[in-house]
Amino acid sequence: MRPYERDPQAIYAASFATVRKEAALDRFPADIAELAVRVIHACGMVEIADRLSYAPDVATSGIAALRAGAPVYADCEMVASGITRRLLPEGTDIRCTLNDPRTADMAREARTTRSAAAVDLWDTDGAIIAIGNAPTALFRLLERLDEGAPKPAAILAFPVGFVGAAESKAELAERPRAVPFLCLRGRRGGSAMASAAVNALAILAAGGMQ
Amino acid sequence: MRPYERDPQAIYAASFATVRKEAALDRFPADIAELAVRVIHACGMVEIADRLSYAPDVATSGIAALRAGAPVYADCEMVASGITRRLLPEGTDIRCTLNDPRTADMAREARTTRSAAAVDLWDTDGAIIAIGNAPTALFRLLERLDEGAPKPAAILAFPVGFVGAAESKAELAERPRAVPFLCLRGRRGGSAMASAAVNALAILAAGGMQ
Repeated sequence: MRPYERDPQAIYAASFATVRKEAALDRFPADIAELAVRVIHACGMVEIADRLSYAPDVATSGIAALRAGAPVYADCEMVASGITRRLLPEGTDIRCTLNDPRTADMAREARTTRSAAAVDLWDTDGAIIAIGNAPTALFRLLERLDEGAPKPAAILAFPVGFVGAAESKAELAERPRAVPFLCLRGRRGGSAMASAAVNALAILAAGGMQ
Repeated sequence: MRPYERDPQAIYAASFATVRKEAALDRFPADIAELAVRVIHACGMVEIADRLSYAPDVATSGIAALRAGAPVYADCEMVASGITRRLLPEGTDIRCTLNDPRTADMAREARTTRSAAAVDLWDTDGAIIAIGNAPTALFRLLERLDEGAPKPAAILAFPVGFVGAAESKAELAERPRAVPFLCLRGRRGGSAMASAAVNALAILAAGGMQ
């Protein structure tokens, strides 16, 4: 059996030191770099730094929203599970409407996915949106914005997979509807990255990191 | 706004068709290929097929265990969240001991991580083990096996990150302690992959796919 590091603080420090050493973070403003570091830490891939797109105000807007008590919407339970509640301002509401009793019927009626229907139950106004699974959730969110839904404070977009993930994030990055956003272009993504982006905002909101 | 696919069945079919077309699955036996397909689907990366290591009996052993009512242990709540309960045999227990009231004290006492201490609360005998976050959980599991703990039916190992992830999976792949396993070598991994591997076993146990 090979020896291994057991000390949580040492693991934490060595992990983030490796990310900061290996990832190409130079192009990012300082606050965006903090988001990038935590997203990279969550997936083990330093090379994704090259494929992150963002609005320069996504961190400031997200931080201000969290401090003002904004809720966080997650597109699936895994994203909600990955958010570290103790990092968030006390009383922050983490909401996932995927398993809301109304969602399945709404999806059937609208001939769409449950993930997309769930978005119709979101109160987007000033909210933090974390999408870590379903491209259709991001597409539906953008449609709702086009229909006049109130603007979120930040969209953290990490839908993953082979149908619509790259396309939905390209749509967001090319036409963000004046909403601050962070996304990983291409097929890669996932709930761990989406949760990590929320956790990074929470740490920045509490005055940590940097 | 670009058009997008909204039909869940069409998305599902196109996703898996893309994985089967693009991923190099030829080297896998049929049942292992099914596990690989779902793990790839969960992360959006066809190239990970080249870095999967496995014991040839991992699917048959995992399927038999699920059919016999074995519990599933997850190293973190995200993995547990990602397991689709309706796919599993009725009554299958999904267990996560990370937030057990005893775990934090056990970790302090053993001078290790909570993730490693949580493993000491697992009844490994014939269980399905899904690790999607913590390298120290996999290291501790291997230590327990060396200490004589009863063998699990399958270890699905996808710890992720920069400290210990590659090393713990190399230890497993090189010396699996006669336990059937599937792992993704290197730094990459994550809870979505671990959950997907469990879901694939569940579908195979119910007679689906292939």
